[in-house]
Amino acid sequence: MAETPDHPAGSSSPSKYHNFDVDYVIHYKLPTSPSESAKAEAAFSQLIHVLAKAGFATEVRPGKQGSNSLLVFVKLASLPLLQSQVYRSRIQDWLYGVRTAAPNPTNLPLSRYFDSEPVTEAERLRLAYLLITKTKNENGAGVTPKIGTWKYVESIFPLHDRKFNRQWITEWSTKYVLDEEDLTKIRDKFGERVAFYFAFLQSYFKFLLFPAAFGSAAWLLLGGFSWFYAAVNCLWSVIFFEHWKMKEVDLAVQWGVRGVGKIQLPRPQFQFERESLDPVTGEIVKVYSPYKRLARQALQVPFAIACVVVLGNLIVSCFAIEIFINEVYIGLFKQYLTFLPTILLTIFMPTFTTLLTKLAEKLTDLENYETVDAHQDSFVQKIFVLNFITSYLGIFLTAFVYVPFGKILVPYLDVFSMTAQKFTTEGKPLPTQVWQINPDRLKKQVIYFTVTAQIVNFATEVIVPYAKRKAFKTVEKVQALSEKNEEGLLKDSPDEAAFLKRVRNEAELADYDVTIDYREMVIQFGYLSLFSVVWPLTACSFLINNWVEARSDAMKIAVNSKRPIPWRADSIGPWLNSLGFLSWLGSLTSAALVFLFNTNKSGPDGSPWEISAWALLLSILFSEHLYLVVQFVVRGVLAKLDSPGLQKERAERFAMRKLLLEQMIEHD
Amino acid sequence: MAETPDHPAGSSSPSKYHNFDVDYVIHYKLPTSPSESAKAEAAFSQLIHVLAKAGFATEVRPGKQGSNSLLVFVKLASLPLLQSQVYRSRIQDWLYGVRTAAPNPTNLPLSRYFDSEPVTEAERLRLAYLLITKTKNENGAGVTPKIGTWKYVESIFPLHDRKFNRQWITEWSTKYVLDEEDLTKIRDKFGERVAFYFAFLQSYFKFLLFPAAFGSAAWLLLGGFSWFYAAVNCLWSVIFFEHWKMKEVDLAVQWGVRGVGKIQLPRPQFQFERESLDPVTGEIVKVYSPYKRLARQALQVPFAIACVVVLGNLIVSCFAIEIFINEVYIGLFKQYLTFLPTILLTIFMPTFTTLLTKLAEKLTDLENYETVDAHQDSFVQKIFVLNFITSYLGIFLTAFVYVPFGKILVPYLDVFSMTAQKFTTEGKPLPTQVWQINPDRLKKQVIYFTVTAQIVNFATEVIVPYAKRKAFKTVEKVQALSEKNEEGLLKDSPDEAAFLKRVRNEAELADYDVTIDYREMVIQFGYLSLFSVVWPLTACSFLINNWVEARSDAMKIAVNSKRPIPWRADSIGPWLNSLGFLSWLGSLTSAALVFLFNTNKSGPDGSPWEISAWALLLSILFSEHLYLVVQFVVRGVLAKLDSPGLQKERAERFAMRKLLLEQMIEHD
Repeated sequence: MAETPDHPAGSSSPSKYHNFDVDYVIHYKLPTSPSESAKAEAAFSQLIHVLAKAGFATEVRPGKQGSNSLLVFVKLASLPLLQSQVYRSRIQDWLYGVRTAAPNPTNLPLSRYFDSEPVTEAERLRLAYLLITKTKNENGAGVTPKIGTWKYVESIFPLHDRKFNRQWITEWSTKYVLDEEDLTKIRDKFGERVAFYFAFLQSYFKFLLFPAAFGSAAWLLLGGFSWFYAAVNCLWSVIFFEHWKMKEVDLAVQWGVRGVGKIQLPRPQFQFERESLDPVTGEIVKVYSPYKRLARQALQVPFAIACVVVLGNLIVSCFAIEIFINEVYIGLFKQYLTFLPTILLTIFMPTFTTLLTKLAEKLTDLENYETVDAHQDSFVQKIFVLNFITSYLGIFLTAFVYVPFGKILVPYLDVFSMTAQKFTTEGKPLPTQVWQINPDRLKKQVIYFTVTAQIVNFATEVIVPYAKRKAFKTVEKVQALSEKNEEGLLKDSPDEAAFLKRVRNEAELADYDVTIDYREMVIQFGYLSLFSVVWPLTACSFLINNWVEARSDAMKIAVNSKRPIPWRADSIGPWLNSLGFLSWLGSLTSAALVFLFNTNKSGPDGSPWEISAWALLLSILFSEHLYLVVQFVVRGVLAKLDSPGLQKERAERFAMRKLLLEQMIEHD
Repeated sequence: MAETPDHPAGSSSPSKYHNFDVDYVIHYKLPTSPSESAKAEAAFSQLIHVLAKAGFATEVRPGKQGSNSLLVFVKLASLPLLQSQVYRSRIQDWLYGVRTAAPNPTNLPLSRYFDSEPVTEAERLRLAYLLITKTKNENGAGVTPKIGTWKYVESIFPLHDRKFNRQWITEWSTKYVLDEEDLTKIRDKFGERVAFYFAFLQSYFKFLLFPAAFGSAAWLLLGGFSWFYAAVNCLWSVIFFEHWKMKEVDLAVQWGVRGVGKIQLPRPQFQFERESLDPVTGEIVKVYSPYKRLARQALQVPFAIACVVVLGNLIVSCFAIEIFINEVYIGLFKQYLTFLPTILLTIFMPTFTTLLTKLAEKLTDLENYETVDAHQDSFVQKIFVLNFITSYLGIFLTAFVYVPFGKILVPYLDVFSMTAQKFTTEGKPLPTQVWQINPDRLKKQVIYFTVTAQIVNFATEVIVPYAKRKAFKTVEKVQALSEKNEEGLLKDSPDEAAFLKRVRNEAELADYDVTIDYREMVIQFGYLSLFSVVWPLTACSFLINNWVEARSDAMKIAVNSKRPIPWRADSIGPWLNSLGFLSWLGSLTSAALVFLFNTNKSGPDGSPWEISAWALLLSILFSEHLYLVVQFVVRGVLAKLDSPGLQKERAERFAMRKLLLEQMIEHD
């Protein structure tokens, strides 16, 4: 790759990568109706005005051909403004305890101070975004996309650094293991929030090496449903979870963002009930009754029940139809009918999930949080419930209903046979098989979810959007050609043409949502923790998948999404709790699965289950408490070990204390 | 009571209460052997020397008649020394984040600063003690009682404030409920560590009102083993535990000691393996390998097993003998033999407990902690295991072995019958009853532990030591009278006579150990949480007991103990975990007890227990997870509510931030 400098002038290749020092692009969509149009135009001139007032230089260019939109290129006008923003933000960090050392402790002139602690790209972009969105009281421009006056502001996004992206993708696709340096690069470009995802993914990937190796050995030597594999797997999940908790803190310290969660972004959609005097700050604050919110949060319970009922019914129905067709029915069109449940699931599952996700969004809005983080956390919680059901309920049904209670279910399946018999016009009974439990079903299902579904997921995540965009582009080109004949193309200056084309494309890309990637990994961890005892090769599949996943997620950010705003974060947030929950639940399900399926003689086929029920419960109870004890011990041991990040933090704090103490004592 | 001023001169009554401004008394015991005597005398003159060097004024008086000991009265010589100590300590607090506001932020001269934030008595005494015990490197006197050079230093103790004590006891014995002000007074006199105990006791007492009322109602309307009572009791214990966790933080903030645990006292007994460079401070520190310590900590497991085996065997044996004598044996001396198990328990239990406590001390010493707190925590953990067994094992055996497995135990009891038959010289079989399970046994046992044992405990804690001291005094007086004839009494100056008599008495008193009081309360909470479903009046008994307990503990401190050194603390320490553990375990035992004893038909008498075992396990499993869910919810709800202490802290932090931010911005 050509090593072109960042700010060249006049050469031919640079504009291919060059962003003209633009900080943000505001995509402004003008409405088509004339009444709205006037409003939108007024708002647009206001936009330019407030941006200028907040200290931004702006340039406007037309948006994509025929989209009736404008692109506002925004750039912080002066270096002192940027420096004062950075300095304020660093002081705030220090006061909130995010950074240990005060910025500029030796009182250098600001320009020289910034030589010693330079501004990173992520810092600049984050503060620029904050300056655009902060209220006017806080000296910002107060632009909030899609809300109120700014409802025509479609999006505010930074521009991709093509050169970096290209290098990034090339590098990653040619190396096996990502290192700290790779993460630091991501952090400097995309902020700690995205970097934490990759750090988690990387840590998880490394940890997967052990269960992949051990799982293969167990698969060869022990087979499925081995209690030894289950125990080792649980122990592994405890160690992984506890290790990550430490690693998270460590990374936060190394990246200088520990406790950054305390500095909260206000949520512009927050609706206040009344204003009151804050007992803490003595300022007037907007208040929403916590009791009202608690009452609304209680709606999560009916929501969870609704999820279970709606998705549960769908899954159970498809499950029953599937069993009937595959294992009872042997009549006409069997080869086609086999696909019926899959078709039903493929149609209804995404529909219901979308509906319920919308409902979750509505509920979270209703809970009316003051801060972006609280809103996000609450939403993630609901999404986890939803995904838990869609991902695991099927396997739960097979393992804990279909197999153990199979014999009891037979009469219900006879209902199917009877219905089936009515379908024949001639009144002749439809031919049906004698029903028997299919013991391989569980394994097949687990393999489906851990291998097939992962591949399908990769396809829908990377290949489909890419193909879609390519197809759309072709259509648009054809349209543009036909329009050209009618109106003539907007003429970009030749210097800017390539750049503008690139920006227009980026404006059309989707927002990158790290939540979706986290969800995927957490749900995957769930399969490993909950069901891998069924098929010990699970971790192998995940190991391969996650190598690809890291690269495809990088691709997704670099090629298929707008460049994310480089937010900070000091952890993987609410997903940590989800991980802990799945790890714990794994101790229950593994014990139950081993107990039910390990010996084929007396348990699973439904015969003497009543007598061994107490043994099943005892083994679950034992396993769970063993898990808790092991967790306690692992936590204790890990807490004793020192981590480089925490050591660094302590050293800094100590140095600061010593310095201050000496100063004070001298003074005294 | 006479309202005499604190510093009178020449009046007749004051010396009765007056302490001559003495900060500490050092009780120095001279050995009797001549070889030792020389060493001890050399050490004594060194003692006076180091104290003087550290800034103390000293006076020496003879100790108690015939005890061959000396009393060194120690007092901080100058006000500036005290002020500089206080100022340093407050700066340290500020640097460690214990206090939010920097001391003396407006740079007043020190003398005027101390007018605005005066030194409390507890603060003065604590810092004086630290100055006596700190090493010489830290400008202290380096006196460590009973260790090394200072092995003849029997104790270092502050003097009781008789006037305050008298008022305290009078006040408390005439009021029903203690309030915040009472706690603040204790805090100012005896330090936060003792104040936290009384705060906990008070909070627990208030919370007991509910289960006492509800328990009485349940006892009248529902009887024992009601699932409804069990559920309410568990819910109560969750709320109490979570509430206390918050209250603890709140109090710590109000008392300005939050995070005080971070400022650690080095443990003088700590033995280092090697010296190394601390990566944090860059100083040379004494290190003990954490892996070695971990290995030694692992000895806790065999220790716990030893406790179970030794105490378990004792309890089981006595239990078996008791059952045999009470319920099988009907031969000779039955009325006397009934007491045999009680006698055996009364002899062996304290013996074994003392032995095991000593073992626990040895083990904790072996673990070789750097700090006093870590040592104490580890010791408390072992003590809890020990007490758990001695307190609850008997009831566990009755409830979960004796009753459900009774029928299976019969053959073993026949062994007793057979042995008993051999005892008769005439070869005639001893008369034995046909054995039947005594269903009232469990209830009787619970009542014994929750009523009788509490009263016995009160007696041994308060009345016995008091009586003992009275008796000793009489003996001593008689001895003194006889000695007087031989040697003649040491003559005290008449001004000091009453004072010295008082100090000599105080020197003989035991140290007050708050751990013992905590242990008692935690174990009591355990009975309520684990077994109160057997006898719902439990909480009533505890309510009455704890009213008395608060007063008798106050008496114990005021009359039966040396005045405690006013240490700080920011919580009830390791006991919090014990409380949480007992509360959780309660959800298991309550479910099991209700299930086993609620219906008398099918479970407890040992007949069809195998069939209902799965139902028992299911109910335990259900109950435990319900408990965990409830805990999660209660925690979430309580976290949303604001507490005055945390609000105050936030307000202070905010004010500090605002101030600093303004200063910084101005400067910039």
